Amino acid sequence: MKKILFLLLFPLLANAQNNTLITVRQYISSNQNELIQQFVKFLSIPNIASEKNNVENANWLVKDMQKRGISNVQILNTTSNTNAPAVYGEVKVNEQANTIIFYAHYDGQPVDTTKWSQGLHPFNPVLLSGSLNQHPTVLPFTQKEYNDQWRIYARGASDDKGGIMAILNAYTALMKSGIKPTVNIKFFFEGEEEAGSEHLYEILENNRQLLSADMWVICDGPVHQSGRKQIVFGVRGDTHLEITVFGSKRPLHSGHYGNWAPNPAMQLAKLLSSMKDEDGKVLIKGFYDDVIPLSNAEKIAIASIPYMDDSLKKELGFMIAEQPDKGLSESINLPSLNINGIQSANTGKLSANVIPVKAVASIDLRLVMGNDWQRQQQKVIEHIRAQGYYVTGKEPTDAERIKYPRIAMVEKSGGYNAQKTSLDNPFSKRIIAAVQNTITDKIVISPTLGGSLPLYVFEKYLHTYPITVPIANYDNNQHAENENIRLKNLWDGIETYSSIMCLRK
Amino acid sequence: MKKILFLLLFPLLANAQNNTLITVRQYISSNQNELIQQFVKFLSIPNIASEKNNVENANWLVKDMQKRGISNVQILNTTSNTNAPAVYGEVKVNEQANTIIFYAHYDGQPVDTTKWSQGLHPFNPVLLSGSLNQHPTVLPFTQKEYNDQWRIYARGASDDKGGIMAILNAYTALMKSGIKPTVNIKFFFEGEEEAGSEHLYEILENNRQLLSADMWVICDGPVHQSGRKQIVFGVRGDTHLEITVFGSKRPLHSGHYGNWAPNPAMQLAKLLSSMKDEDGKVLIKGFYDDVIPLSNAEKIAIASIPYMDDSLKKELGFMIAEQPDKGLSESINLPSLNINGIQSANTGKLSANVIPVKAVASIDLRLVMGNDWQRQQQKVIEHIRAQGYYVTGKEPTDAERIKYPRIAMVEKSGGYNAQKTSLDNPFSKRIIAAVQNTITDKIVISPTLGGSLPLYVFEKYLHTYPITVPIANYDNNQHAENENIRLKNLWDGIETYSSIMCLRK
Repeated sequence: MKKILFLLLFPLLANAQNNTLITVRQYISSNQNELIQQFVKFLSIPNIASEKNNVENANWLVKDMQKRGISNVQILNTTSNTNAPAVYGEVKVNEQANTIIFYAHYDGQPVDTTKWSQGLHPFNPVLLSGSLNQHPTVLPFTQKEYNDQWRIYARGASDDKGGIMAILNAYTALMKSGIKPTVNIKFFFEGEEEAGSEHLYEILENNRQLLSADMWVICDGPVHQSGRKQIVFGVRGDTHLEITVFGSKRPLHSGHYGNWAPNPAMQLAKLLSSMKDEDGKVLIKGFYDDVIPLSNAEKIAIASIPYMDDSLKKELGFMIAEQPDKGLSESINLPSLNINGIQSANTGKLSANVIPVKAVASIDLRLVMGNDWQRQQQKVIEHIRAQGYYVTGKEPTDAERIKYPRIAMVEKSGGYNAQKTSLDNPFSKRIIAAVQNTITDKIVISPTLGGSLPLYVFEKYLHTYPITVPIANYDNNQHAENENIRLKNLWDGIETYSSIMCLRK
Repeated sequence: MKKILFLLLFPLLANAQNNTLITVRQYISSNQNELIQQFVKFLSIPNIASEKNNVENANWLVKDMQKRGISNVQILNTTSNTNAPAVYGEVKVNEQANTIIFYAHYDGQPVDTTKWSQGLHPFNPVLLSGSLNQHPTVLPFTQKEYNDQWRIYARGASDDKGGIMAILNAYTALMKSGIKPTVNIKFFFEGEEEAGSEHLYEILENNRQLLSADMWVICDGPVHQSGRKQIVFGVRGDTHLEITVFGSKRPLHSGHYGNWAPNPAMQLAKLLSSMKDEDGKVLIKGFYDDVIPLSNAEKIAIASIPYMDDSLKKELGFMIAEQPDKGLSESINLPSLNINGIQSANTGKLSANVIPVKAVASIDLRLVMGNDWQRQQQKVIEHIRAQGYYVTGKEPTDAERIKYPRIAMVEKSGGYNAQKTSLDNPFSKRIIAAVQNTITDKIVISPTLGGSLPLYVFEKYLHTYPITVPIANYDNNQHAENENIRLKNLWDGIETYSSIMCLRK
């Protein structure tokens, strides 16, 4: 029945590429149970980047890829990192063909098991009949037919073991259906993306020849909030600052000393609030100065992105955006300053009648093309100085405490710059066509993702550009509790990647 | 040897009251070991107000007071509170004499045992050779002689089992030395002061006759930071607000949504910083309006308080007071707004790349004469409204979230007003004289404590005024880890209270 449905729905897909699509769809439709069973096994292996069991994931992948007939499968590691190696494999079509290398990562964000909804657990995957706000029921994994709206819940379901499964099954679908890819394929599955990809550049540098390709296809992140497939041509850069301001050395009774001893929580509130105006614009000197303006092609692409702001606001539960005059698509093309957290003494039941000894804010800075992450950090530090603060990198000494009226300890994280691949790159155009070919809806072309990935490394160490082709549902709870993938997104992902593997001139 | 020393040091103390003082000093000097052993037993009984073992403290006190020959010793309770009763006792001199009732509390603040310094524990008292910053050594409790600078570390050592021990031993010292008090003495030891004295008014109301007196002497709090004895004639009132502001309903990825989704941590920073100017003055409309100006006698008393600000700032590790133009003594005579704590998502190692869903601030408001605690709460709420917030007492509904651009949930605590006893009250003058008589240094007369105690209840339910006569060292770590009392403060306290028990016309 399903096969007939496909033929009815896509009567216009008549060329070779569309025959490929129909064949891949038939393969998926006939093998859903097996695809899901295999995915569940993979999801059951804990995958926190900092833990040793990541090697187990890598080993599982090596065996799985070998079983699929992929060549030259191997672990890529560095001497300093044996816990989270990368996994490599390749399929050579012929020497003259272009080479596309598919990237995904098998590690996941840390988990707080207690926060997962009842019946769910990061490493015991569960199949539910929908998203949690639909009050879904639990379903057995073995089914005769699977509804497209069902979802698998587990850490990595969407970010990013789902990506790996879609890539590998795209290849298997083609191979089992007797379709030869038009490009040489390389597979590169990272094991520490969620821990900051600390060793990625070393692995790239040590394997330049092995990893040479014409384009990296990054399989990570969600499709557009409208549900449409999207291709993303860049990422924002990212860096962090942690700011601590100080009051008395010991907690003081808020009655005996309140009004007299300085309150670091109030100082921090004033400092943070000096950084943005009422309309969310950053007031730090020169904050927007380095930004390279968008190209015309990018402006057109942004203007074509479906406007989801109003329905998103309703779903997320707020009335007005931080910058009321800017939409989401415009905002993520600007550098940002965002408070990730504030902490000073305690609130709620743990609150006590004290004047806190210190107040801490974690801030992240997202960067666009033109920004330099260290220069951006420095702008914030100069702003803190301009508010009358003595800035130090360490806990203040007693001598400093009584010398300076205001003291801020600023701890700088590492960071990296934004990256962008031109929409005019010939491979960009060919990949857009390949993805567009899998659906009748117009795909979304996003000049940048709001989020960050260290994609500059591919450009810097291998002189090859990356393009991101995400597949997960946007409401996948990435990085949080109850991570999930909708089955339709998994099937769509297989189609998308198989189409790229059959890239046309 | 010690006795001779006393006689040499106080050759001028020649009248009856000073003979009493000398006798009490001799008693203390000869009984230090016994006084300390008994105190250690009392401190070893855990005394968190909300826990059941507070009854054990009350029972211990009943037995101890009976042993001392105190009459009519009894537990005072309410039907609704059987865990933290008050303990009463009395000594009648004659019907015509005035009656002084001594108040202290046996319960202590909650403890976080992990924060206590190594070797210390809230309910295993330890004797150290000094304060912790002096790198003291641990000493056995049984000694032939005790240095005045040694300190006992335990929860309640200074706040306020030390107060109870000083009161009871003041009476025992007189009795064992054959000195008859000049006033009838009543003892009232509360068991839930640190939990907010929720049932105190009921106990007072139910026992008006039993608790009738000419003056309440409150034995709680520290002496002046200069080390001088002080008498305090009032307390600030106190109430709290917890303010929560809201962003998205679920935590959002700070990359994908940063710059667009509203950040409640930034909103809270702006809201809090609107409440005070750069010089610490509260900007909330009418905040200082109700304040009853200080009397001339109070102004003179405040001007006479030793100026400790500079040495305190150095010790506490800050350069400038929150209100740079005001000293500590002046500041605590004003209403205050103090942030007790702020929390929004996480900082440090737990920090994540999120836009927090909410930000919370706990605020305490201290009140002076003229302020009404509910009116003061309302002023803050009106200020929040004036900043464009919709104010609610509950978590906002989905409908409210998309109706109002800014939402603040404000949770109001209970509270009470400030209380003051006139410096011109005849008993005020007699008690000042009694305390002044125990030392040659001028005692400190403070019109108010910066801190708060529900002293209004004595005035309201018993029509009797309270005066606070504290004894603990100011650096006693009250309410925090490593609470302690310096032995000299304990001995001085016994002298002080015995002098009040021998109050002169």
